[in-house]
This record gives sequence, structure tokens and C-alpha cells, in this order.
Amino acid sequence: MKSNIEIQRIEKSKIDSVDFNNLPFGSVYSDHMLECDFINGEWQTPVIKPYAPISLDPAAKIFHYGQSIFEGMKAYKDADENTMLFRPLENWKRLNKSAERLVIPHIPEDIFMEGLKKLLEVDNNWIPTNEGSSLYIRPFMFASGIGFHASPADSYKFIICTAPSGAYFAGKVKVLIEEKYARAANGGVGFAKAGGNYAAQFYPTQLAIEKGYNQVIWTDDNSHEYIEEAGAMNIFIRINDTLITSPTSDRILNGITRKSVIQIAEDMNIDVEVRKITVSEVIAAAQSGSLKEMFGAGTAAVISPIATFGYHGTDYDLPELENPFAEILKKAITDIQTNKAEDPYGWRVVLD
Amino acid sequence: MKSNIEIQRIEKSKIDSVDFNNLPFGSVYSDHMLECDFINGEWQTPVIKPYAPISLDPAAKIFHYGQSIFEGMKAYKDADENTMLFRPLENWKRLNKSAERLVIPHIPEDIFMEGLKKLLEVDNNWIPTNEGSSLYIRPFMFASGIGFHASPADSYKFIICTAPSGAYFAGKVKVLIEEKYARAANGGVGFAKAGGNYAAQFYPTQLAIEKGYNQVIWTDDNSHEYIEEAGAMNIFIRINDTLITSPTSDRILNGITRKSVIQIAEDMNIDVEVRKITVSEVIAAAQSGSLKEMFGAGTAAVISPIATFGYHGTDYDLPELENPFAEILKKAITDIQTNKAEDPYGWRVVLD
Repeated sequence: MKSNIEIQRIEKSKIDSVDFNNLPFGSVYSDHMLECDFINGEWQTPVIKPYAPISLDPAAKIFHYGQSIFEGMKAYKDADENTMLFRPLENWKRLNKSAERLVIPHIPEDIFMEGLKKLLEVDNNWIPTNEGSSLYIRPFMFASGIGFHASPADSYKFIICTAPSGAYFAGKVKVLIEEKYARAANGGVGFAKAGGNYAAQFYPTQLAIEKGYNQVIWTDDNSHEYIEEAGAMNIFIRINDTLITSPTSDRILNGITRKSVIQIAEDMNIDVEVRKITVSEVIAAAQSGSLKEMFGAGTAAVISPIATFGYHGTDYDLPELENPFAEILKKAITDIQTNKAEDPYGWRVVLD
Repeated sequence: MKSNIEIQRIEKSKIDSVDFNNLPFGSVYSDHMLECDFINGEWQTPVIKPYAPISLDPAAKIFHYGQSIFEGMKAYKDADENTMLFRPLENWKRLNKSAERLVIPHIPEDIFMEGLKKLLEVDNNWIPTNEGSSLYIRPFMFASGIGFHASPADSYKFIICTAPSGAYFAGKVKVLIEEKYARAANGGVGFAKAGGNYAAQFYPTQLAIEKGYNQVIWTDDNSHEYIEEAGAMNIFIRINDTLITSPTSDRILNGITRKSVIQIAEDMNIDVEVRKITVSEVIAAAQSGSLKEMFGAGTAAVISPIATFGYHGTDYDLPELENPFAEILKKAITDIQTNKAEDPYGWRVVLD
């Protein structure tokens, strides 16, 4: 790091205006943010400062060419007021993978990790302690350099904001398996957490919402026969007692919750298959009764059980099980995240 | 329009600092910009004001979800100082097509056209008169509404900036036909001028630049066998005396220069085929000597002749022709744009 993190504290906290018992997801922001500029080929001193608007030239390439990436993380507090992160280095590594694909400079580990820890220290009161709530953390990077020429910018901003948050989805999720639109191309940026991947999903998702669904399950753009991911979540499908999820690829995000779920499930002796799964196979399993569960896995929603999926004009309801895998796995992962269980994996990072 | 355009003039113009004889492309900005906000479900009064930074909440969705679109246009001045636009309503229509796919509200024709005309009136001195230069116009729209939830924003900005500009490419263009990476998915947003489409091209383009090429010619993401577009230009290929270009699709931008070129070429009795064209066909034509020309067509570069293309480790040089189609068509289109020739199509719009 160029030099120590500079800290500019807010004059008066706005925390008293927040109802921690009724937190929305990602729309109430903590007092401070971390900001670090990449200028003249190097990262400058990171600054923690009051949460405030960002000022950008109208020709900044973020506005024109979508050169932006982000991460999603959560911080938790346990009963003893310890602050904990979950596999934060995985987010740092993935942010840099996204950065490489979008031609954004790598962010050094010390700016990411020390910046994050210091920000959580400064805004420690903002980490919720209520069951089911957490501090959602949003690190992001974007092109601040200017020009109406479609080429990478010469300067960038790395920012971390945080938002005390409740649940991402309220209630059961109803999803639509997509048959026309697609999220990602082969050889494209689907594996990256690139801003443009999300906006591209809004229209098909809106069409699905108008039909009564919450989200789209994306299929491959060529045949629409292979289950890929849900845009904000990876997808797991349980057929009989086998848990199946698609392998990651250049079209599918390498979800941290996804790989944590695979590890925990395997260690519980659940039969896990990481392989391509077709829509036909899922429909056949639904019809024969062997389809037991479908759920999404992602940082925001953790594990989100799917109640119903739609395909080709028909809705298929998932059975109501006792002790579903989704519930067992969600408890296992959140217990590790919140220090209610042993962490044999070394995933939990407790801050000093 | 909600009410008349509000105009806030700059105190002191910066035009004297600009060398109009050595204009770069898109990196010198005129004195004023137009800005219009979409708030509470409606477009507010457009404001023409001094070119100045935009201030946005760090949670504005443009930073996180790539919800942004743009257009590229040019204004010209003829010998009598008339100001001219080229098919501006086509840009307006396409901006709204992009808007629909990205779930951004439509911009009304009067805000777009009246705003543009008024801006060009206020900054009329900024329109270059030198041969080969023009005022590049960049209308763009993006999500200013906030939230860390991957869904469309509730507020947006529509902005028009202008930049007196010289040529987009200097010299002959050397392109690489892409075999691994892809620009667009079937059922994706490739047809839209969405910001994210451009950032996704930076990395493969950078790899091509490192190998000595200027740009990538994109192929379909499934087989890499069909020629699509060049990212900032549509592609035309002349085999013997036939001019071939790919049909537009949900992966290929419906270029205004592209369709103008097709119309002019047909009216010159050039044999034009709008059909899928394979890489194999182009290679075979290059080997047999029937491949005469390749050129890109787009607003920024108008028509950009390709000198060499690379494919699978081999470079293929295009022949040097006398009176190539590229030159004839470029002269025809720019003569219409700059009022040096009759405009039988009604494409030129002369401002009052």
C-alpha cells in the first residue's frame, strides 16, 4: 500500500435513524465508505471518509462502456460482539479475476483486506446482531478515466460501501427456466461479476416477474437445454438423495457460497455431483417424483429454497420435505459464518 | 416535454484553448452539456449547463449493475456555416430500443431532438469546419437510482455531451478474426448500445493489440464460424464485385452507417447481399484472389478500410485497388452528411 489508510470521520452518525429490527436489503448505508483511486499507473492512499456522493466527469468511461465489477460479502457479529467475515480472500481473488477480464487493474490484497477491516472497525456499530441480519459489504471498481473512445480507461476507483441488511428474498421463491433470452455467451464475461451482466438480465427477469415469478434460471444461449445459474445465485438440484450443480465455466459465476455448500454437503456424506444438468432431466425428475429440492446459493440470499419452477407454460411445485438439504446446509453454513459452530475449514475470519 | 429547456450559459468559453487543426477523437469537450433527470416516473425539465462533473450516490446502480446505454452521432458544418445532422431520428429510435432491453425509460422525441438542436445552437462554435473533422455527439442514459439489489433503478439521467473530433482511426486497419472470445450471446444484449457490451470487448481486443492488430472481428459464440461485427463497426466484405454484410440480429448492432451504405451501394447498382457469411468463405476468397475488400462501417469511423486480417495464425492482406468500393461509398455518404452532394434520401437534417 502506498501509505497508511487515511481516516476522515463523520461529524454526526446517522445510526440513530435506522431501525435495525426492520432492515431492508442493501438500501440503508453505513456512515463511512472506503475510496481508493488508481491514477498514473498506481493505487493511491486509501481513504475512509463519510458516505457521500462521487463526482465524475461526464466522459468517465463507467457511463459509456460499462467497465465495472463488484463483489458481495457479509460481516456478522456473534454473541460476544466479535466481528466476522466469511472467506474474504475468495472475494478478493474473484474481484481480481473479474478485473483481468474487464481490463481493470488488480487491487492489492493489503488495500482490499486492510481497507475492509479498518472500515468495519470504524463502522462497527453498523453490523447488525439480530438473527437473519448482517452487514452487507459491497466492494466495487469502475473506470473513472475519460474519453469517447471504446478502450480501457486510464484511471479507476475502488470503493467499499456497507449496508446493514435483512433478508434478500422474502418468502418462497418461484423461478422461471428461460427459453429465449440468455445471460452469457461462450467466451464472454458471464463468469465475472461485471456490472453489464446484471443489467442484461433485467428485461427477461421483468417479463418473468410479470408472469408471477421472482427470478429467471438461465440456460445456455445455444440450446437452452442446460441449467446454468440464476443471475444472483448458483443453482442446486436434488434428485432423490443426490445434489447436482452445474460446473462453473466462462458463462457461470464461481460462487463462494456454491463451493462452500459443495464442501459441507460432501462432508455430510451427501452425494454431490458437479456436472451439466439438462432441463429435460429436471422435468423428467419432477414428473417421476424423484425431484426433491431446488435451491439457489449466493452471498446475498445464502440458500434460497425454490418452491415452484415454471417451464414451457407449466408450473412444477417442489415437494414440502421435512429436514430438506436446503435447510440443513443453510444452518451449517450460517452457523459457521456467525460463530455458532466449529469451523473445520478455516473459512471464518474473526477481526481483532 | 415537461417545460421548456432551461439554459445556464458558461461564464467564459474554453474554446480558445482548443487546436481545431489537431483534434483527437472524443477527448476535448464543448462548453455545455444537456442533462435531464427521470425521477418519480417522469422526465424533468432538460437543462443545458456548463460541462461539469456529475455527482452520484455510491449506491447508484450505474456503478454496480451496468444499466447504461448510449448513442454516437456527428454534426457537420458546410461552407455556408449551416449545421447538419445525419439521420438523427434513427439514433433516437435506436436509443429507445436499447432502453427497452435494459429496462431504462424511453426518452421522448422532443427532449432528444429539441435538446440536441438547442445544445448545438448554444455550442455552435464548437462544430469543426476542417475537412475530416466533425462534432462528435454522445447522448447517453444511465441508472442514477440507488440500491444493492440487482433490479432496475427508479431514476435515470439522460445526458448529451459533444466533442469536436478528428478521425477515429489513423491509418490502415489490421483486424483479427476472433476464435475464442465472443461479444454477444443469442438472446442477449448484443444488438443494443449497452455499456457492458463494450467493456466485455476490451480484454480480447487487448490480446489482439498485443499481437499487432487494431481491432477484433467478432464471430458467433457457438461455432466462431460466422462473421458478426467489429464491436464499434459493422463489417462489409467484397467478393469479386459483390458486397456482403451480415444480417442484423439480437447479437449484431443495427448500424445507421451500415444501412446507409447498403442503400447507397444498391442505388449505385452494386450487388449487395445481406446474408450470413462464414470465415471459411472469406478465407477461400482470400486464397483464390476473389476477396477484394473488407471495411468497417460506423458513425465514429464512417468507413474504415481493412488492410489486413488475421485468422488462425495467418495474416491475409487485402489487395490495393483503384477506386475501391470503400472509398466510393465513403465519399458518397460524407458528401451527403456535409452537404456537398444532393441528398435523395432526406437523411440530412439542416438546423435552422
